[in-house]
Amino acid sequence: MKDFNVAILGCGTVGGGVARIMSELQEEISNRASRKINLRKIVELTPDSAAKRFSLPTDLFYGHGKNLTGEEAEHYIKEVLEAEDIDLVVETIGGSNDYIENLAVKVCEAKKHLVTANKALLAERGKAIFDTAKTNDVTVGFEAAVCGAIPIIKTIKESFTGDSIISLSGIMNGTSNYILSMMQNEGMEFEEALKLAQENGYAETDPTLDINGYDAGHKLVILLKLAFGVDIAMDELSIGGIENISREDIEFAEEINCKIKLICYAKKIDGKIYATVCPMMVKNSNFLSGVKGVTNAVRVVNKYSGKHILLGAGAGSFETASSIVADIVFAAKYSERGQVSYDKQSLDFIDASHFEFPYIMTFETADVPGITGLVTTSVGHQNINIDTVSHNRHKKDRATFSIATMPCTMLQIEKTIAEITNNNPDLLLSTPKVIPILY
Amino acid sequence: MKDFNVAILGCGTVGGGVARIMSELQEEISNRASRKINLRKIVELTPDSAAKRFSLPTDLFYGHGKNLTGEEAEHYIKEVLEAEDIDLVVETIGGSNDYIENLAVKVCEAKKHLVTANKALLAERGKAIFDTAKTNDVTVGFEAAVCGAIPIIKTIKESFTGDSIISLSGIMNGTSNYILSMMQNEGMEFEEALKLAQENGYAETDPTLDINGYDAGHKLVILLKLAFGVDIAMDELSIGGIENISREDIEFAEEINCKIKLICYAKKIDGKIYATVCPMMVKNSNFLSGVKGVTNAVRVVNKYSGKHILLGAGAGSFETASSIVADIVFAAKYSERGQVSYDKQSLDFIDASHFEFPYIMTFETADVPGITGLVTTSVGHQNINIDTVSHNRHKKDRATFSIATMPCTMLQIEKTIAEITNNNPDLLLSTPKVIPILY
Repeated sequence: MKDFNVAILGCGTVGGGVARIMSELQEEISNRASRKINLRKIVELTPDSAAKRFSLPTDLFYGHGKNLTGEEAEHYIKEVLEAEDIDLVVETIGGSNDYIENLAVKVCEAKKHLVTANKALLAERGKAIFDTAKTNDVTVGFEAAVCGAIPIIKTIKESFTGDSIISLSGIMNGTSNYILSMMQNEGMEFEEALKLAQENGYAETDPTLDINGYDAGHKLVILLKLAFGVDIAMDELSIGGIENISREDIEFAEEINCKIKLICYAKKIDGKIYATVCPMMVKNSNFLSGVKGVTNAVRVVNKYSGKHILLGAGAGSFETASSIVADIVFAAKYSERGQVSYDKQSLDFIDASHFEFPYIMTFETADVPGITGLVTTSVGHQNINIDTVSHNRHKKDRATFSIATMPCTMLQIEKTIAEITNNNPDLLLSTPKVIPILY
Repeated sequence: MKDFNVAILGCGTVGGGVARIMSELQEEISNRASRKINLRKIVELTPDSAAKRFSLPTDLFYGHGKNLTGEEAEHYIKEVLEAEDIDLVVETIGGSNDYIENLAVKVCEAKKHLVTANKALLAERGKAIFDTAKTNDVTVGFEAAVCGAIPIIKTIKESFTGDSIISLSGIMNGTSNYILSMMQNEGMEFEEALKLAQENGYAETDPTLDINGYDAGHKLVILLKLAFGVDIAMDELSIGGIENISREDIEFAEEINCKIKLICYAKKIDGKIYATVCPMMVKNSNFLSGVKGVTNAVRVVNKYSGKHILLGAGAGSFETASSIVADIVFAAKYSERGQVSYDKQSLDFIDASHFEFPYIMTFETADVPGITGLVTTSVGHQNINIDTVSHNRHKKDRATFSIATMPCTMLQIEKTIAEITNNNPDLLLSTPKVIPILY
């Protein structure tokens, strides 16, 4: 069979890792695909530093190792798109804007397979890209876009095909999990842990998307489509971040045998998909509670085969790159037959605020007699069963009130808080924190 | 694309599960393969009970639901092999004998894809089958043969293709893990735990292969071939079982922050593969120590993407069947391109007795002064560094001696034991137990 030729656009942390692995493992990956796989060319604005960082020969780069202007890079990208002997293009430029979307679409229109680690692009603008790929009979590989090295995409796409997924839950953002782990295990405050994550290269200079849950949200949106055929925009998913998690919350979690984790959660109930991204109190008996640092993990419950866990590196240069190279091998091996076939269930998507979780609700109140009665009466008015109530951490004039509920909806919780606030305007001394409990 | 038609030979626990899932998920699996997948016919000696157990229509069975003689079954199997419209045969008869090997070969010769859960067959007689499949351009699916529902085969074959496996370790036999868990958590003796396993249907009436490590060995032999291209016979692999693990060993493991687990272990060092199956002291910090009951788990360390863990159900009717159905979908989707390509490294296989582990060695001695000196001197003679020594559990006239060593070979350990025995014929009051420690 004829050779399979690859071009890489963007040779940064991930693209450079792909180039390095492809050169180190060329014989192995060719054997695995039963055809020779070649890395033909790389388009990179600053090839000199990329070549040094990843020990790559400069003649792999367009421009023979000299820095490119934007115009020159555009010219070479056009050359890649027009080259008849390029079979697959790796997009590791990043970003989710019109330019990148157009580029990805053009790759598919040029009848070249596309492989990308760009989760934001696929979650926000995936439809045009997948549609174009389908029309042009090429494949889009995106194993690296969700949980880095963990092969969750191919596991759903190729291994769980004899089953039916009931629920997905996972720790899909390493930065936030690192921060929570440091708060948990080293007694750090949020800001301190974030600073350490940045110093260790685990968080971007602007860590917003990691902290506010949107990076995890991008991954969940991609998985929802793959696992359940649910096609939603980012703003249809309720997404919470970890910015308001305090040391006190972490300590409280410990008291009730939990760890606080940023959880991506999706469950099929009666043909509807409930999903959310938010910090949850994960019971110590749940595997996800023990996942520490930048590691990612996904827990899948299937109808026939039950519980599965996949754990591995969620990010990193070579870790992510290894997933991209696996996609290249897959495309080279199965070519036209590797098209993504999304699950064809036509399931309704329901924001998880309508879904029943047991919740932990905590807030500060004045430390006076009778308060437990006032609060629990309001809880009862909303038909919420209470699991446990505690009123402790007594300070001078206030105390922390925590209620663990039996499963109820966020709507019931919100009504409860409204009633408490309306009936007793001076009672709540802090905004209630509401966190679901994951068993 | 034309329909993809399947026949099942043997409708017991696993085959019946396959038939049931295929009928419940027919639309889904057809969508996933982008072609209609049909379960055409089943050959089963006692179709009536199978039909009842798995709610299958009797006209799916050859003979319309009446029991078949061996001769009739043979006739119908021949009909399957000759049927032009059967694309894939599921072999769920079981056993590793000439008859089953011939049958599997004949399926491939008839240019039909083969899917099987038969680990003993593939480990002991796989070569003829895979060779015939290759010659006839059909695929052999065997996801279900290793760790039931865990997709370790496809993960190695299709997802770790952009990487290089450094080591594999895992709990691959649910029965023995259930027994060890019951001894660990419920304080049971071996015999008691085995009896409970049999009562709960987790162990066969003859549990020999589960207990003596050979079932796990079959799985490791298959993985060695897939992951490293190492082709060995069962008798080339050192295989130990759990039959001699006592409550005392379990208690001792607890004292040193370990759990005893039956571990399949393989590691690549300097281009050589070291492998073994035996009970190991797994440090509590190692994920595998926490895997309880009949659950299986595999830990893979890759060169680029680091540590991966896959956990799931290792056995069970529908659990195993779901892996078989996934193989059917894969064959239907990728047909001729789904051939197993074994890793083409030509690596030497080294029995793990030449490999360095830290070991725990325990034995009873007379409880008299000077013994620690005698024993540790012999250990020193073999150039073994000692991590810890303890001489405790003092009974009337004897005590238990345990030595945790730094990494050394089994050969060194054996020489040590020989020296101790030769120099002090009355010193050892029990045969030393030697168990590697897994960090």
